[in-house]
Amino acid sequence: MQVIKTPAEMQMWSRSQGMTGLKIGLVPTMGFLHEGHLSLVRQARELCDAVVVSIFVNPIQFGEGEDFDQYPRDLSRDFALLEKEGADVAFAPEVRDMYPEKMSTFVEITSMDDKLCGRSRPGHFRGVATVVSKLFNICQPQMGFFGQKDAQQAIIIEKMVRDLNFPLEIVVGEIIREADGLAMSSRNVYLSPADRKNAVVLYQSLLKAKDLVADGVNRPAEIIKAITDLINQTPGAVIDYVEILSGRDLSEIEEIKGKVLLALAVKFGNTRLIDNLLLEV
Amino acid sequence: MQVIKTPAEMQMWSRSQGMTGLKIGLVPTMGFLHEGHLSLVRQARELCDAVVVSIFVNPIQFGEGEDFDQYPRDLSRDFALLEKEGADVAFAPEVRDMYPEKMSTFVEITSMDDKLCGRSRPGHFRGVATVVSKLFNICQPQMGFFGQKDAQQAIIIEKMVRDLNFPLEIVVGEIIREADGLAMSSRNVYLSPADRKNAVVLYQSLLKAKDLVADGVNRPAEIIKAITDLINQTPGAVIDYVEILSGRDLSEIEEIKGKVLLALAVKFGNTRLIDNLLLEV
Repeated sequence: MQVIKTPAEMQMWSRSQGMTGLKIGLVPTMGFLHEGHLSLVRQARELCDAVVVSIFVNPIQFGEGEDFDQYPRDLSRDFALLEKEGADVAFAPEVRDMYPEKMSTFVEITSMDDKLCGRSRPGHFRGVATVVSKLFNICQPQMGFFGQKDAQQAIIIEKMVRDLNFPLEIVVGEIIREADGLAMSSRNVYLSPADRKNAVVLYQSLLKAKDLVADGVNRPAEIIKAITDLINQTPGAVIDYVEILSGRDLSEIEEIKGKVLLALAVKFGNTRLIDNLLLEV
Repeated sequence: MQVIKTPAEMQMWSRSQGMTGLKIGLVPTMGFLHEGHLSLVRQARELCDAVVVSIFVNPIQFGEGEDFDQYPRDLSRDFALLEKEGADVAFAPEVRDMYPEKMSTFVEITSMDDKLCGRSRPGHFRGVATVVSKLFNICQPQMGFFGQKDAQQAIIIEKMVRDLNFPLEIVVGEIIREADGLAMSSRNVYLSPADRKNAVVLYQSLLKAKDLVADGVNRPAEIIKAITDLINQTPGAVIDYVEILSGRDLSEIEEIKGKVLLALAVKFGNTRLIDNLLLEV
């Protein structure tokens, strides 16, 4: 596996690959890799000729007071994991090379960014859309791989690709969970042992919602109430949001019908966890 | 020459060209071509293997009350001119194919867009940056050709390419003028015979500024005053702006020194004309 550190070298590599007709798959990550990322790498390995995994903790998607400085990093462990999965390139640029001058150009999301995580993280999706656009232009993939765990991000990136005609296809990989159901996340390492145990309530909430829908409950408010009660009974859990929206475009829905996204964000101490369930009803 | 009408076909064509290693040059235009455009096509012909000229009057860069509906169009004449210049592809999509759904993603310019034309045309450069990003993604050129006549646009697009890492080079072609010095523009056809004659004052103003600088005048205000007086003496001419800014980043300057942009916009009736001079002092 090749480690590439600068956008200029990465762009040259991608161009030379493109000329040979090889299909590049890009898995954009912020590193500190877990099984969720690695499952995307395996999908890319299966569907593409060359697999590029970017590792970049992107400052412009973190707000003031968020955990940019504390975000966990371990590049040498990441490289070892990627080597084992057969990635072709680990692209790990420095902030100064990704943002060499003051930015005057941003990719803005003008709808869907004020819902869910966008509400408590203003500017977050602008930062995500901008860096993903940069990564697409640098790595020139024919396929981009994103995780369903960041459901809102996946929907926004799919829309961005259509709106701006990026010449590539987005593949969304399913959520990978720990044995007890907690969705894998680089941020899980922040949890105290007690919080780690209690954090399973996110997954239990989703299962409960699934049961309620299976029992014929079709009013979002009723499901949200049941979940809210369950989480509120959990020590240390503070709800950021519990929402049920259209799984196509994050618009409000009156009834559980069609493609439905149930998404939640819960804080344990300073650690904010998200999880979601996409239902076809 | 091939005429391609849809983004999907254009993207396929570009991908197949890219695989053969051919260098694509893109000349983005709004059609109603004149010598200014054709000089860019010739430059592209010289520097690239395949030349794509896009013809698209982009609705999202026109404000309310602007001339989107009245913008002159003559596709068959354009195709004939491009055929003669040896363009490989004329890409002439319909609005419904470029914007098949409500847009939620825009490329925003967060500085330099409130100067010059941006002041009287809010949202204009967001529309330009967004459609140019779409055209880059659809046509996948290694070189993009823009005219110096739209000086602010050229500076903004060059910055956008750096900020978002578009894998291409921008070439800015010099201003092409009529015999009397009027900068060529598709909008010149709107001018009444009297206004057409008087419109030469834009070029005369630039020449006057050049003389003043050559004579050692180095205060922007002095030059602006001389030009303003000259234009105000011209029947039918109404100044939108006369400005002297840094030619690198459009910031304000105190002194004529380095790369300096003198830009002006003047209305004759409903027709707004622009012209500019880039000086290295």
